[in-house]
Amino acid sequence: MSRVYKRCLIGEESLLAQSEWAFDASELDLGIDVPWSVEKWTLRGGRQEGVELVEIDNGRMSIVVCPTRGMGVIEAWCDDVMLGWQSPVREIVHPAFLNLPERGGLGWLGGFNEWICRCGLESHGAPVEDVVLDNQGTEMRTFLPLHGRIANLPASSVWLSVDLDPPHRLRLIGEVEEAMMFGPALRLTSMLETELGAASFRIVDTVENLRSVPQEMQLLYHANFGAPLLEEGAELLIPFHRMAARDQRALEGLEMWNRFGAAEAGFREQCYFFQPAANRRHQSTAALVHPGGETAASVTFDTRTLPWFTLWKCTGDPRDGYVTGLEPGTSLPNGRRFEREKRRVRTLDPGESVRTDLTFSVHTSRAEVGRLRKRIERIQKSADGRVESALDAELSP
Amino acid sequence: MSRVYKRCLIGEESLLAQSEWAFDASELDLGIDVPWSVEKWTLRGGRQEGVELVEIDNGRMSIVVCPTRGMGVIEAWCDDVMLGWQSPVREIVHPAFLNLPERGGLGWLGGFNEWICRCGLESHGAPVEDVVLDNQGTEMRTFLPLHGRIANLPASSVWLSVDLDPPHRLRLIGEVEEAMMFGPALRLTSMLETELGAASFRIVDTVENLRSVPQEMQLLYHANFGAPLLEEGAELLIPFHRMAARDQRALEGLEMWNRFGAAEAGFREQCYFFQPAANRRHQSTAALVHPGGETAASVTFDTRTLPWFTLWKCTGDPRDGYVTGLEPGTSLPNGRRFEREKRRVRTLDPGESVRTDLTFSVHTSRAEVGRLRKRIERIQKSADGRVESALDAELSP
Amino acid sequence: MSRVYKRCLIGEESLLAQSEWAFDASELDLGIDVPWSVEKWTLRGGRQEGVELVEIDNGRMSIVVCPTRGMGVIEAWCDDVMLGWQSPVREIVHPAFLNLPERGGLGWLGGFNEWICRCGLESHGAPVEDVVLDNQGTEMRTFLPLHGRIANLPASSVWLSVDLDPPHRLRLIGEVEEAMMFGPALRLTSMLETELGAASFRIVDTVENLRSVPQEMQLLYHANFGAPLLEEGAELLIPFHRMAARDQRALEGLEMWNRFGAAEAGFREQCYFFQPAANRRHQSTAALVHPGGETAASVTFDTRTLPWFTLWKCTGDPRDGYVTGLEPGTSLPNGRRFEREKRRVRTLDPGESVRTDLTFSVHTSRAEVGRLRKRIERIQKSADGRVESALDAELSP
Repeated sequence: MSRVYKRCLIGEESLLAQSEWAFDASELDLGIDVPWSVEKWTLRGGRQEGVELVEIDNGRMSIVVCPTRGMGVIEAWCDDVMLGWQSPVREIVHPAFLNLPERGGLGWLGGFNEWICRCGLESHGAPVEDVVLDNQGTEMRTFLPLHGRIANLPASSVWLSVDLDPPHRLRLIGEVEEAMMFGPALRLTSMLETELGAASFRIVDTVENLRSVPQEMQLLYHANFGAPLLEEGAELLIPFHRMAARDQRALEGLEMWNRFGAAEAGFREQCYFFQPAANRRHQSTAALVHPGGETAASVTFDTRTLPWFTLWKCTGDPRDGYVTGLEPGTSLPNGRRFEREKRRVRTLDPGESVRTDLTFSVHTSRAEVGRLRKRIERIQKSADGRVESALDAELSP
Repeated sequence: MSRVYKRCLIGEESLLAQSEWAFDASELDLGIDVPWSVEKWTLRGGRQEGVELVEIDNGRMSIVVCPTRGMGVIEAWCDDVMLGWQSPVREIVHPAFLNLPERGGLGWLGGFNEWICRCGLESHGAPVEDVVLDNQGTEMRTFLPLHGRIANLPASSVWLSVDLDPPHRLRLIGEVEEAMMFGPALRLTSMLETELGAASFRIVDTVENLRSVPQEMQLLYHANFGAPLLEEGAELLIPFHRMAARDQRALEGLEMWNRFGAAEAGFREQCYFFQPAANRRHQSTAALVHPGGETAASVTFDTRTLPWFTLWKCTGDPRDGYVTGLEPGTSLPNGRRFEREKRRVRTLDPGESVRTDLTFSVHTSRAEVGRLRKRIERIQKSADGRVESALDAELSP
Repeated sequence: MSRVYKRCLIGEESLLAQSEWAFDASELDLGIDVPWSVEKWTLRGGRQEGVELVEIDNGRMSIVVCPTRGMGVIEAWCDDVMLGWQSPVREIVHPAFLNLPERGGLGWLGGFNEWICRCGLESHGAPVEDVVLDNQGTEMRTFLPLHGRIANLPASSVWLSVDLDPPHRLRLIGEVEEAMMFGPALRLTSMLETELGAASFRIVDTVENLRSVPQEMQLLYHANFGAPLLEEGAELLIPFHRMAARDQRALEGLEMWNRFGAAEAGFREQCYFFQPAANRRHQSTAALVHPGGETAASVTFDTRTLPWFTLWKCTGDPRDGYVTGLEPGTSLPNGRRFEREKRRVRTLDPGESVRTDLTFSVHTSRAEVGRLRKRIERIQKSADGRVESALDAELSP
């Protein structure tokens, strides 16, 4: 059994004040010459007031997690590569300043600037009217806001754990509760794990239904890449069974679906929906390759719990967000009502939990990018790769 | 005149920082050998961040009040008896994280887990469309959210007072303002008072209309009991003139109205409405008796200002909330529009205030519970005790 | 070039904690015998919790600015004259406690009590349904809440600057961002400037469109005066080309438009709309003159960017707000849809900014008030001063 150092960073068992805290080899000697560190600090001013951040640096890759925003990953750095994007929302916004239902359910867009942002848990996707039960157990029509609540719920507890034995994994574990009386009670337990010196990290999330009755659940990882990785000529790699454009607008760009254009003021977003293909261990990998072919970022995910994938192309002017989203999900982001009709909404029994598993990696040489490409091509060989030339009524409304 | 020690705990005159503060006989010698104490602390992490709590311990009973949530009482302990319940909402939620109008006006349910939670002051009860005046003095239809705002408004000032002379009362006084321009301006002054060594405490609330024009006001005390006091076979005692089921669902359980069943997954709530009977001093008492008959909790209230009583039976699975509410109110919780039609909404003249008075007690022996039962039966003798076998259009819509 | 002392009070570059900070001649000797000072402190308790205030005292006039509420000016004192008013909202409300869309879009009224409150930036004025673009660039009907967001957005950075050379100006510069993805991204840079010993200060605001596409923008300065400056018999001075009552209710008081009545319980507000006249340097001045004629307050503004003016008369009972608003704006506060139809909504090109310039002054002797009156009369001589006897369909819907 591995010996482990553990410390509560946020929550009832935490002894840390809200201010700055830094932790590294000078406090915990792992007997290895890697400049790892963990820091926690609190933002001040504007809509950032009180937002807490935790940065995990494994010596090569540093990852900034925001417990205040549902354990989302704000950005990361690996060698010289920044992972993330520039949103017109420049502040890391405290949820108290947001109003999700406002503006036709688009309030979420007032805080959207993470690299990796979870959407869910009761629902995700486009704002839509759907049916829920009220306090009397009666069906009631209500409006589900864009992408749900989880990105705007603060973690009730956050723990750091450090393996004292090789390969010396650093882990950040956070619990976020999305619970109300007479409604969903779902608990996300998020584990972000990285090894010293690695150019990757893994996210293992567990979502548990705390109720005594079955509960629908949706979860999507909105992983967003902007410059410098995203540039004109960048390429998307993903192995798939079939894919289709979401709407007429996306159909316009179908031929170019796996290539990215230059920034274009007023660009209207295009979404493509995929049924991703996986290897025998149910692993699929999507990647964004920089035009030069010497750098790429990838996300590998388990298709047993994340069987759908959305590509979001939003290559507008940098001032408005020049960005693409690689989005593994339990379903597509069409709004829960449509997804339920298409049997893509998962229902958790009482006490049941679902476990997602994703690895985000950076590839920093032509050779590494080549191996990545081969891995994805190998998976593609076992699957159709059908690109539908028209809209697919099964995949979008 | 009683000599009094006073201290501002929250507000402009407070010298206390937000962090922990404890106060007891070692700081203020009352010359009596009772281990009383008062503590204040602030919660950290999740939706609890920044929530302040004050615990008053009279040496026998300890009462946890939440100034951040409108001076609600989170829970209390008397000897070994816990008063309160387990809500699926496990955090004590800061109001900044709630959105009352969302989900058809049910946003309040995202923070509901108090033992004693005030509902009001502009309105309480079911979400309902009603008419208010806008800034131009014109009638406007708007949606009043479930149970109003008061439970999610922080107290602007909180004072502790300790009587230096016997019987050494401890008092916690909080002011909460529910005010807007061109709308209601109501001030709640809440006083919670307990004597050293007592198994009870009293709440005296004053609600004042600060406007120059008449203002409607509603106030209901949502006192919620779960295990261990509530168990299969527990009994409700209340003297009444008449009572009726709220709806068809409640009618199903009419015969068993004063008995509680075991936890039942998917149980749909049942509400019963009472016109409580009182003694000559206008005091009525409702009680929840543990099946063994050796423990009970009761609330005694002045029916001149709290002339209505609601019993809320919600004996679902413990994970969803196994709970019953004993709810004295200025009206029934049907939504303000219906209550106004039935002339149960109180209107306060300019500068007028209404004063409610309630005593919560714990009874911890067969003898005490017997006396309690007798007291209630004696009141019942002077009143009809009519159980209506059908729905009553005067009491529910 | 003037030598300048600079200090970051709020934001990433600030080294100040949230608690109290005071700064004056004992820390920065300007070599002049004026008791100037700058203080920053944080409010505690109730809906004020965490609200930061900065008071600039130039030795004669002290001005309290609230960075947490969009750099609004809470109140000011000049000699013995208080500038501001008593709202039924007595707390300086933290935006986290407000819900702008609630109550038919009137949520803003729950925090309204500033002396000078900015309305805007995406829109201001009456709540109204209007069209915006959603994330897919599709037109969507949405509800714009009363007076927009800017008064409830905290400043992300605040700087103090002090001129080391005469005339020793004190400046407070704040940046507030009103930004979302797929929506408006407007930055307000607010500069409040006052000279040592002056009975006036200047506000120079810049609003920049950060997007790559044109963006509509509205801005109005809601400057509100109550007692003691406002009393029965107080007089409004403003030079204008034309003016009209907003509605039937205002028409009732048309003859008395420039005089104020005594407090009247239940008084319904009256608004008058002006096209103000200006001198050759495009400066217009509106003033409120105390009945005695020995005290007045005025606002001088540049009509090139603030070409419209609203007079708000709201002389209700002091408990409900006895107040008048002098409101220079980029448009009238009718709701954006109507103002757009009438071509009064300004559109900013990508990167374009608009700069407003206002000076607030206090006049404290009969001679000074006389000069003020003459200045305004001189401007009026060059303009029509047409009072429309009926409603004007160009000015109000």
